[in-house]
Amino acid sequence: MKQLTIIKIGGNIVDQPSALEEFLKKFSKESGPKVLIHGGGVMATELSAKMGLQVNMQNGRRVTDLDTLKLVTMVYAGWINKSIVGLLQKFGTNAIGLSGADGDVVPATRRSPYPVDFGYVGDVNPVDINVALLESLLGRGITPVFCAITHDRNGSLLNTNADTMASSLAIALSRDYSTKLIYCFEKEGVLSNPDDEDSVIPLITKSSYELLKETKAVSGGMLPKLDNAFAAIESGVAEVCIKHALNLGNSKGTVLKP
Amino acid sequence: MKQLTIIKIGGNIVDQPSALEEFLKKFSKESGPKVLIHGGGVMATELSAKMGLQVNMQNGRRVTDLDTLKLVTMVYAGWINKSIVGLLQKFGTNAIGLSGADGDVVPATRRSPYPVDFGYVGDVNPVDINVALLESLLGRGITPVFCAITHDRNGSLLNTNADTMASSLAIALSRDYSTKLIYCFEKEGVLSNPDDEDSVIPLITKSSYELLKETKAVSGGMLPKLDNAFAAIESGVAEVCIKHALNLGNSKGTVLKP
Repeated sequence: MKQLTIIKIGGNIVDQPSALEEFLKKFSKESGPKVLIHGGGVMATELSAKMGLQVNMQNGRRVTDLDTLKLVTMVYAGWINKSIVGLLQKFGTNAIGLSGADGDVVPATRRSPYPVDFGYVGDVNPVDINVALLESLLGRGITPVFCAITHDRNGSLLNTNADTMASSLAIALSRDYSTKLIYCFEKEGVLSNPDDEDSVIPLITKSSYELLKETKAVSGGMLPKLDNAFAAIESGVAEVCIKHALNLGNSKGTVLKP
Repeated sequence: MKQLTIIKIGGNIVDQPSALEEFLKKFSKESGPKVLIHGGGVMATELSAKMGLQVNMQNGRRVTDLDTLKLVTMVYAGWINKSIVGLLQKFGTNAIGLSGADGDVVPATRRSPYPVDFGYVGDVNPVDINVALLESLLGRGITPVFCAITHDRNGSLLNTNADTMASSLAIALSRDYSTKLIYCFEKEGVLSNPDDEDSVIPLITKSSYELLKETKAVSGGMLPKLDNAFAAIESGVAEVCIKHALNLGNSKGTVLKP
């Protein structure tokens, strides 16, 4: 089976030009076909403030009214996506920037307004992803770079969680590739002590994850990330890693296995 | 030879949601392979004002410092490009939004800072355009939708004139397609009296254009549009039309011939 690496990079790295550039250099050196998914929430929050737009977060997720949808589409699909594509071209990776609307690659369903109305927020079902175009691009040596904007096939763009977007793409592409999914962010991995970067848990299995949740050793924003990761593994993704963006290319970080 | 229609839509239409939607419905009904290039200057100017960013125009062209480059990339490649793609998907056209950096399709050269330093502004040479990816997409029934952002292959995005982007794409694709280039905007065509929408000049040839310029019957923003159009015709584009966006699909407007 062909190998494929899918890498998700969080907003905290994307927002730091020198760290982003260093990460993209490492990303360019990853061999074989690859896909990048990026966040961008930090820059979106900053621009909201500049434009006097109120940021409304519920359970750690952005409530997306029409003005917010415009803003995140401008930031994620516009500046961040195209800056990354431009830098990757410089580093010798022939990248193509995509939202889920492009080529109808990642259609999504607008989330039910009950119990919380998140507005223009979409959830992806991996079986709906159109892998044919992606495989054609990968076959031409082109690297898709996704922002987490999707669409409802009825003319509305939808804001989507970038971690879920990455795991959905990994699941969909696992039909035809042996897929490794790497979540890159600004910490060394999953930490047993959030204040100690040396407390990386090198391996988490499905059963040890249940224990970590029970003992509240992991919590907050890490929970949906790990839930996505294990959902991906259960749906055919070969391996998931969680690591610092600048450790891409080495063996540091947390590996997740069934 | 295969037929191809390349349509450029200006910022004044893009900025009006109902006119844009009506135009995109008509665009979706155009048969055969097609490419869309859109402007967005009106929305960029409005957002500049909202963000307290000064707009600096020289000879009718935007001077693009780094903050302005960020802004136009957000507006053109972000909100406008993805909104258009989302609407086209709704109308049954499988669109893919692209900047010139994506797939390295349209590399450009940063304009010399003398005599006027336009900042991050790029000029396109049609021979540099990578038609292979475009032809592969068109062959799959996918419609490329371009904003006029290009790149210098060295990590910088560049702001590019959308009319030139359209004519450059038309010239490059004329090698393999019989290409019709249509400039859609908010007027009925090239007018002999700018205040009279009934004064459309139905046909302009290269020699009648020289006369129109000498008598100053056409001037201002129409001149670079017509210069681009005739450059395209001289470089192999089969036909150029200039017409109102909402007349797409009928025979109204101005036709340009050698």
